[in-house]
Parts: sequence; structure tokens; C-alpha cells
Amino acid sequence: MSIITLTTDFGHKDYFVGALKGKIISELKEAVIVDISHDIDLFNTLEASYCIEAAYSNFPKGTIHIIGVDSERVADTQHIALQWDDHFFICADNGILNALLQKKVAQKIVAINIHDRLHNNASDMDVFVAVACHIARGGLLNVIGKEITELKNVNAASTIVSNDLTTLKGQIIYIDSFGNCVTNISQKQFIDVARNRAYEIQVKNKKITRIHKNYSDFPIVENKQLKDFEGDFLALFNENGFLEIAIYKSNPKTVGSASTLLGLKFRDMITIEFKN
Amino acid sequence: MSIITLTTDFGHKDYFVGALKGKIISELKEAVIVDISHDIDLFNTLEASYCIEAAYSNFPKGTIHIIGVDSERVADTQHIALQWDDHFFICADNGILNALLQKKVAQKIVAINIHDRLHNNASDMDVFVAVACHIARGGLLNVIGKEITELKNVNAASTIVSNDLTTLKGQIIYIDSFGNCVTNISQKQFIDVARNRAYEIQVKNKKITRIHKNYSDFPIVENKQLKDFEGDFLALFNENGFLEIAIYKSNPKTVGSASTLLGLKFRDMITIEFKN
Amino acid sequence: MSIITLTTDFGHKDYFVGALKGKIISELKEAVIVDISHDIDLFNTLEASYCIEAAYSNFPKGTIHIIGVDSERVADTQHIALQWDDHFFICADNGILNALLQKKVAQKIVAINIHDRLHNNASDMDVFVAVACHIARGGLLNVIGKEITELKNVNAASTIVSNDLTTLKGQIIYIDSFGNCVTNISQKQFIDVARNRAYEIQVKNKKITRIHKNYSDFPIVENKQLKDFEGDFLALFNENGFLEIAIYKSNPKTVGSASTLLGLKFRDMITIEFKN
Repeated sequence: MSIITLTTDFGHKDYFVGALKGKIISELKEAVIVDISHDIDLFNTLEASYCIEAAYSNFPKGTIHIIGVDSERVADTQHIALQWDDHFFICADNGILNALLQKKVAQKIVAINIHDRLHNNASDMDVFVAVACHIARGGLLNVIGKEITELKNVNAASTIVSNDLTTLKGQIIYIDSFGNCVTNISQKQFIDVARNRAYEIQVKNKKITRIHKNYSDFPIVENKQLKDFEGDFLALFNENGFLEIAIYKSNPKTVGSASTLLGLKFRDMITIEFKN
Repeated sequence: MSIITLTTDFGHKDYFVGALKGKIISELKEAVIVDISHDIDLFNTLEASYCIEAAYSNFPKGTIHIIGVDSERVADTQHIALQWDDHFFICADNGILNALLQKKVAQKIVAINIHDRLHNNASDMDVFVAVACHIARGGLLNVIGKEITELKNVNAASTIVSNDLTTLKGQIIYIDSFGNCVTNISQKQFIDVARNRAYEIQVKNKKITRIHKNYSDFPIVENKQLKDFEGDFLALFNENGFLEIAIYKSNPKTVGSASTLLGLKFRDMITIEFKN
Repeated sequence: MSIITLTTDFGHKDYFVGALKGKIISELKEAVIVDISHDIDLFNTLEASYCIEAAYSNFPKGTIHIIGVDSERVADTQHIALQWDDHFFICADNGILNALLQKKVAQKIVAINIHDRLHNNASDMDVFVAVACHIARGGLLNVIGKEITELKNVNAASTIVSNDLTTLKGQIIYIDSFGNCVTNISQKQFIDVARNRAYEIQVKNKKITRIHKNYSDFPIVENKQLKDFEGDFLALFNENGFLEIAIYKSNPKTVGSASTLLGLKFRDMITIEFKN
């Protein structure tokens, strides 16, 4: 059984996702296709990167991940296939996979070179499907691409630690559908820099001095129940291991969310100050 | 073959639903996973309750239904698994399944107690997946939980019949994507109370004196075709057996819907007056 | 293996799509169900028509396509099943399939007549599912319907060529989620009428004198990179072979799209003038 996941910015209205699935099962009828997201913000490689990094490890080893975001093969942007942590990833070399490589080296990277072998009007998705099905059938990456040693250098969001180690700055890299705001500050980096010092997280004009274990990690005290904390701001390390600014039981459509109530936007800065 | 359905408020943008499916097929690769809805209004257990009650019977006996709405295990809210009408339901004990039990007694209810057996950072969904896959493999509920005899008492929407049996009051418990408004008045209760009397349904400042059989159940008379009725208000018992206030061929994005044109909102009251 | 695709206006919030899938696997547990779209504009048969025409050929021969848009069986609208180009299509006779028949004659058309054989409250979807599963099991169309020779005549969007062959007028029949606007002018018709003459495409108050090969088909010249063209208007023949007015890398949620920036709406006219 071959599992193929899909992460795209194609949306749900159009026939694009259905067509993509049709192409896959036309070529590999036993494929198990799982949607990760089709609502990535259009052409937003940073969102796609966050989503695939957060989702991939929930799937079995050997899963093939197609990422159709900003996937046109133009000038200096090749189509690539990557074997990494025993999973396979197929996308354009546009920065989406760079975050993975910062965590761990790839087992293999190839620049896909089968374009001439496909029919004349082959789309980017035709290429990705051909590669995915080749891998699913146990084919080698070298057969569909030329081995390369590194990805294109793309400016991604990075965190900044001050020289005197008193501040750690990150930025919002993803806002989820609950309106909670995920930063690029990982729990690992936080622990490394904090070295058990007290800290203050500056989020717009608010300060947070505690990082919760989960959304409902509130001290239950006399005369106060969990529901009394609904609407409270909090910071926590999310399931994916990144610092997140959240509101307990927020609803962006009614009362508002961390994003709307704090005015936090994609790429906004978060600063953590450590006390010596 | 094991069928597992998913009803959540996770939305479609984030990787959450994909991750949940990945967890399931990692544990049970032959699982057939079907989405019921991932757009339940956030934390809205009443909507989740209506959806699962309306959807479950379309699936074969033995289907396992995971409901991930307001599913955090906190203070007085346990995770539960229910065998009911030969289907299985897994969720938090937050009122979602109470409506089912009012129709028919459960075959078995357990409070899930496997949390200590899972890894340290196991999420609510990890628990639900472990239980679903256990059931799918033919495992007994008693192995993953402690039998309990009833669910937590949760204030749900109930209908009110006046002492003199002249009025039946219900409320809007669900508004669908056509903007049609579903009440909690069932056809069965209506027939019981009406005893063939004439009636008047009061919806805001409108009165309806007839309940249609379906959306297009209009008298076709000379010089009037079905399309002349587009935009007309009507009441009908929907496929799920509940009284619904609808507009024939409404479109919430353009001309408006029962909800927007009548100003009907979630939890709004509907009154039926019977004539003696 | 039987593949059944679904194209509906049911949306994603309600349980309708889940219930439909449950009905299918209750009757045919090995069915492979693929969503094409559930966000067709409500009751918009033209959109449904465009989507199914664009999507179907991505699936293997023998695939069964259920189209649940404006599918109520009323007065002069029958339920039909069609064998066409070795695929099967099931829907109401409301114009959705007429565009297919203009391209190629049907292998067989039947008016479905099994309604009396189903249970009393059978819905339109119950009928479509019964027919789809019958076909998937290798059943003949004649068993579930009465052969007819043509579809109901429905006014669809058509293109207009002036008598002197100097103009070709079409209209916007679909706006995709990138905000790109698809017309009903096919590449084939354009080539037929143009006979290599120069042309000018009039879109609102803009003129376009070139049709691109794809979204990124810009002349790369000194001091100008592909990203300098982001936001540029262009016309191209899309994957589905129709003339499309697009913006390179548009985002309707932020900077705008062909639809919002040019003020193009569903059914708006596009004129191509040819130079003699």
C-alpha cells in the first residue's frame, strides 16, 4: 500500500484537487491519498513549509508527500524530490523544504528531469504525479532525477538571539483556523537559550510570563472553574514543538482570536526577554 | 474492513485533519476513513450532536465515529466510548451524545482509561485513535475503559409543551450551508402533540400554516410554475426528521436565506400553536 | 475497483457529503470515492457543467460521476444517467451535461425509472447512489432507466461569431479560487475563427493583444525577472482548453485578482476583435 499526501493552495471550490487525485489513481489505482491541506495561503511557501513539517511524522515511514504550492518550474526553480527521515517529498525548489534540512540532512535530493519524457502539455502536477507513482512502485530517485547536494538558498524566517543572550526574537509563521498564532521559536531553542532563567514574552503591548503545558493548563482555585478562563491569553508549546500565542477557547467568527484581538499578523515579531 | 468517520471543528486550512488521518492509517493501514464534517462551529457541541445524529445511520452497522469537538479531557469531563444502535462513538463526555441516549438506551458506555498506557505527550486525538483502532480490530470496550451507566447531565436544547397542549415551543439547533434553519421539534413529537389539529407556526413575525413534504412541494396551478415559488418560505420535516424553516432555492451568498432574511439565529425560539 | 466521483453544491459544513459517502459504502463497500467539488455555487448548473467537463478526463475510463447540483426531480426535470466517452454521469436533466453532448454524441442516455423500487422517503441522492452502485457492479443502464435520445434543451452560455467573422464574443462561465476568469471560448474555436489574423481581446476597459502559453510565459529580458511580472494581466488557454483572463500570482484575499481588479463577474462578456 502506498500512501500519498497532498498539500496545496488549490482551495476546495475548483476541480483541481479532484483532477490531481484522478491522475494519481489513473496511474496507481491502489494509492491511498490523504489530504493534508488545500487551503494554504496562495503561493505562501512558509505556510506550506510549516504544515508539512508538522504533519509528515503522523504518517508511516515511506509515505510520499506532494506539495503543490508555487510549484511552477521557472528560470531558477527546479522540481525536486527528497528522501528525508524515511519519507519522500516532491515540490518545487522554492524554500518549502529548507526547514526540514536544517533539522536533519537529507538521505537523497534529486532535481527532477523527466519533463521531456512526458506528453507535451504536461502540467506541474503531471510531473509530480509521475514521480510520486514511480516512488510508490519502489522506483529509485536517480531514475527520475539528477542527484544534487543542496537546495536553493531561500530567505526564510529565522530567529535572532542577541549577543548577550538576553533576548530571543521570533516571528509569527502560521495562524491556524482557531486564530492561534504560531511562532518559529522551538521549545528546543527556548530551553537552550533560557537556561532556566525567568523570562517575559512581549506580544504587541502585552506581556506573558508563563508558558502553559496545554490549552487548559490553568490553576484551578477556589471559586474559579475552567470556564472562567475562557478568553484568557496564553503562550504554550504546541504539538509541533513551537511557541504559540493562543486564546483559551477562542472563536474567530464570534468573540475573536489571538490574531484578531491582539492584532497579530503573519510575520509579526515576538520578543522574549530573559532575566539574569 | 473498518469504517471510521470523523466529525470535528478542526477546519480545512490547518494540517490537523491530515495528521489525524495519518495517525489512524499508521495504526490501521486498511482503515476506510470518511469525513462527516470538519467545519462544526468551534466548541459547539450542539451542532456536533445534530450532525452525528443525522449522519450515523447512513453508514453500515459497526462503523466507528470519532467526534473531535471540545474534546479536551479536563476536570469533570472524561473521554468516553459508546456502543449504541450497533455503531460506536468516541468523544468527550460533553453532551454531544446525550441526544442519542434520549432516543434509545446504549448497549455499552465506558469511560476511557488508557491515558496512562500512551506516550507522555499523547493528545486527545491520540487517545481517540487508539480506541478507534482497538474497536476496529474487534477489541472490547471494557479493555479500554471502565463501564459507566450514564453520561454527564448537560443542559441541552429541549422542547416545551404547554400544560393545556395548545403550544409546542422549540428552538433553532442548526443552520445549514443553504441557510435553512433546523429546529429540535421532531416529526414524531409534532404528530403526538398535534393530534390532527390545525396549527400555526410562529417564526419571528411570520406565520406558517402548512408543513411541506419536501422543498419543491408546491401546488402547481395554472399560470404558475415551480420557478415562481423560488424564494418562498416553507416549513418541512427534513431528511433527519426535524422541523426545518427553509426557503425554496435560497442562496445565502446572493439573494439570502431563511436565516438571513428572517433574522433567525442559532438558539432562536419557534412556537407552534394548535387550534382546538 | 469502482471509482465514484462527487460534484455537489452541498458545502463542507453540513453532514450531507458524509451521509452520501456512507450511503455509497453501505451498498458497495469497496467503492473508491473521490471528491471533485462540493463548493459549486448553489444551484449553479453552469459551474457544475464546467467543473465536471474539466475534471472527468483525469479519471480512468469507467469512472462513475455523481453530480448533485439542482438535482431535485420535479415536473419536467428527470433524473438521467449517461454513458459518454466511456465514463458514466448521473444527475438531473437540468443542462449540466449538455456541453458534453455538443462535443461528442453519447453512447447511451437513460431517464432513470427506479424511483418506485426504492423505499418511500428515498431522496435524490438515494436514487443516484443506487444507480451508481448498479453501474459499478457492471449493471446495464437499461435496467435502471428508459433509453432516451436527447437531453432537455436548456439555454446555456454560447459564444457568438459575427457574420463578417471580425468578432468573437464569449462570456465568463467560471471564476476559480485564484480569481482567474474562465470564458466559454475554446482554443479550438479561437483558432478556427482567427485564421492566423492579429486580434485584440477586449476585457472591460482593457485590451490584451497576446495569448500566453501558461501563467509564467513572460519574456525574460535584461534587468527584468519573473517576479517583476507578478500582478500583470494576461490571457491564456487553460489546462481545460478555454480562454482565461488571469493575473500572474494573484491572491484574491490580499492584493486582488482578475475578478476583483477588473470587476469581472460571472456571465460578463468578453469580445475578441480580429484584424483583417
